[in-house]
Amino acid sequence: MTASKHKVIYDTDPGVDDAMALVFQALHPDIELLGLTSVFGNATIETTTRNARYLAGRFAPGVAVARGAAAPLKRSAPEPLAQIHGDNGLGNITLAIVGEAVSEAAHEAADAAADKAVDAAPLDARPAHRFIIDTVRAHPGEVTLLAVGPLTNLALALADDPQIASLVKQVVIMGGAFGTGGVLGNVTPAAEANMLGDPDAADRVIGAAWPVAIVGLDVTQPTIMSRDYLASLRDRGGAAGQFVWDVSRHYEAFHQESAQLRGIYTHDSSAVAYLLAPHLYTTRSGPVRVLTEGIAVGQTIQKPSTLPVPAPDWDHRPACTVCVGVDVAGMLALYERTICGTPGSS
Amino acid sequence: MTASKHKVIYDTDPGVDDAMALVFQALHPDIELLGLTSVFGNATIETTTRNARYLAGRFAPGVAVARGAAAPLKRSAPEPLAQIHGDNGLGNITLAIVGEAVSEAAHEAADAAADKAVDAAPLDARPAHRFIIDTVRAHPGEVTLLAVGPLTNLALALADDPQIASLVKQVVIMGGAFGTGGVLGNVTPAAEANMLGDPDAADRVIGAAWPVAIVGLDVTQPTIMSRDYLASLRDRGGAAGQFVWDVSRHYEAFHQESAQLRGIYTHDSSAVAYLLAPHLYTTRSGPVRVLTEGIAVGQTIQKPSTLPVPAPDWDHRPACTVCVGVDVAGMLALYERTICGTPGSS
Repeated sequence: MTASKHKVIYDTDPGVDDAMALVFQALHPDIELLGLTSVFGNATIETTTRNARYLAGRFAPGVAVARGAAAPLKRSAPEPLAQIHGDNGLGNITLAIVGEAVSEAAHEAADAAADKAVDAAPLDARPAHRFIIDTVRAHPGEVTLLAVGPLTNLALALADDPQIASLVKQVVIMGGAFGTGGVLGNVTPAAEANMLGDPDAADRVIGAAWPVAIVGLDVTQPTIMSRDYLASLRDRGGAAGQFVWDVSRHYEAFHQESAQLRGIYTHDSSAVAYLLAPHLYTTRSGPVRVLTEGIAVGQTIQKPSTLPVPAPDWDHRPACTVCVGVDVAGMLALYERTICGTPGSS
Repeated sequence: MTASKHKVIYDTDPGVDDAMALVFQALHPDIELLGLTSVFGNATIETTTRNARYLAGRFAPGVAVARGAAAPLKRSAPEPLAQIHGDNGLGNITLAIVGEAVSEAAHEAADAAADKAVDAAPLDARPAHRFIIDTVRAHPGEVTLLAVGPLTNLALALADDPQIASLVKQVVIMGGAFGTGGVLGNVTPAAEANMLGDPDAADRVIGAAWPVAIVGLDVTQPTIMSRDYLASLRDRGGAAGQFVWDVSRHYEAFHQESAQLRGIYTHDSSAVAYLLAPHLYTTRSGPVRVLTEGIAVGQTIQKPSTLPVPAPDWDHRPACTVCVGVDVAGMLALYERTICGTPGSS
C-alpha cells in the first residue's frame, strides 16, 4: 500500500496526547512522516522542541524535526499547561524509563538514554514554517499538514508563501469545538486550548484556500480511553504500549481530578484517526471563523452549508469539514490495532 | 388545581409562533394570563401591539395588553421578518377569517370582526416595563415572565426597578442556541433572532439575579410540527385549531422553502411547554453570557457547571437552566391535548 501512504508533516506541541498521536503515526503503515514541526502550546517552545526530538529519536528515527514559533502572532505566549501535561510536557515521566519504582542510578541511566534519543534527532536548520514550505513544494499536492497545537507555524508558512495553499493535499486540525458534543471550549466556556493559543493564526489558517478538516472537542471528548483500555495497551503493545501507559499517568490523574473521568479524552490521536479512517467520523460542511476578540476569543463558529441565511463574515470563505460525530469503538479499535500490532492494523 | 396556576406575563412580538403559543396558554387550565406585553421583533411595535390586542381580544378576553419597546436598548430596530411571519406579522391571514377562498364582502366582514377583537382588548395606559413592574409587585414571588421576543422590556423593567429580580418567580425565555442541537443561530451562524434583536438587553436579563430558564434552538428546532400534525389540529381543535392552521400557512411555506422542512419548528410554544411540563426537557446548569459585539454578536454561551476552569466573565453570574434535550413526542402531545381539549389535558 506504499503508493497510498499519507505524507504527513506533524505540527505538534508535545504534550502527552501529542506523544500518543506520534506513536500512532509512527507505527501505522499508511503514514509516512516527512517531519515534525514544534510549536509552543502545552509547554514552552524549548520543552516542546526537546520532546519532539525525543519522540522522533525514539519512535521515528530519521524523521526531521524543525523548531517553530515560541509565541502567537499577536499575543504573548500562554502559560505552559503543566497541571495537564506535567512540568516536562510529557506527564513528568523520567524520559525512557518504563515501569515504576527505580533507583537513582536507573534514573541517571534513563536520563542518559533520553539524551541519546534527543541527540538522535538533530534539529533541522530551518524554522518550522520554512521547513513546511520547502517540504510542501518538494511534494506538490501530496502533503498533509496534521496540526495539533496552536496554528502559528501554519499561519507563518502561509504568510511567507501564500501559494502553498494550493500545493498542500489537506490540513487536518485538532482544535476547536462546535457545541454538538456539549461544549464550546475546554479552557474557557467558548474556547478550546489550541484555538485560544493563537486565535489570529487559527482564523487565517482555517480561512485559507486549502482543504481543512477540523477534529474538535465534539468528537475528541466523547472518545475516552479508559484506564482498562490503556492498561491493555501497556500489557499488549510492547515498548510503544508501555510508553503510552507511562506518559498518560499524570494526564489521567488530571482528568480524574478535573472531570471525574476514569480515563482520558482522545484529542490529538483523533486527528490521526480522521486522516486514516475518515469514515469513522460524521462531518458537516461550511466555512468556519475563529473569534479573535471579546469574551469568546478563540471560539470556532461554522456556518453549516444548510443554514439558509446570508452571513457576510463567513460567505466569502471556503467550506471546511467539521467532525460532529464519531464511531468511538471504531476509533479506539484502530488505535489499539496500531499500537498492539494486531493483524489487520491498516 | 387553581392554587397551582402559573401566573404569567407573556412578553411577545406576534409573530406566528407567538400566536400559536398564546392560544396554547389561553387554553391551558394551569396558566393564568396576567397580561400581554408587546415588543418589536418579528414585526414593528405597531404591528406586534395590534396583533397582541387581536390575540387577547379573540382568545384571552379581559387580559390586559401593554405596549412595549419599539427598538433595542442601543441599536436601531431590525427589519421586520416579513418573509417568515408575513407582512402583518400573522402569516398574512385575513384576521378572523377561517377557511380558504372567500368573497370580498367576507373579507370586509372579517376585517370588521378583527377590528372588533382588537377593540375588545384596549391598551393599558402604562408602557410594558411599567406594567411588568407593577404586576410583579402586586403578586410578589408568584409571577412568571414568559418572554419570547427581544428582551428589551425585561431589561427596562430591571433598570427601572432592580428589586423586581427578587420578586419574580421565574423567567422563561425562548431564545438563543447552544450548539447541542447542531446550530448556534438561525439568523446568523452564531445568533438566534430574539438574542440578536437586542443582545445588550439579553445579556442583562440573563445575568440578573432571578431564576432564568432558556428554551433555545437546541430544543425548538428538533420539535417539528408536521403538516399532518397541524392538519389534525385544524380538524379536531375547533376555532383554535383552525386558527393555528390558518396562521401557520405562510410560516410553513417559509420553512419548506428555506429548510426543505415539511412542517414548522416549534419555537415559542416550547417555552410554554417547558413552563407547564419541565420534565419533558433535559437541562444544563451554569451562567450564560450573550455576546454584545463582534461577528458573533447575539450568541448565547453557557459555562456548564461541569466545566472545571475559572471563567471570570461568567463566574460572577447566577446559574441559568438551559434546555439541551426534549421529549419531542411528549411536547407535541401536550400542545395537541391543549388545543383539542382531549381529556387529561392538564
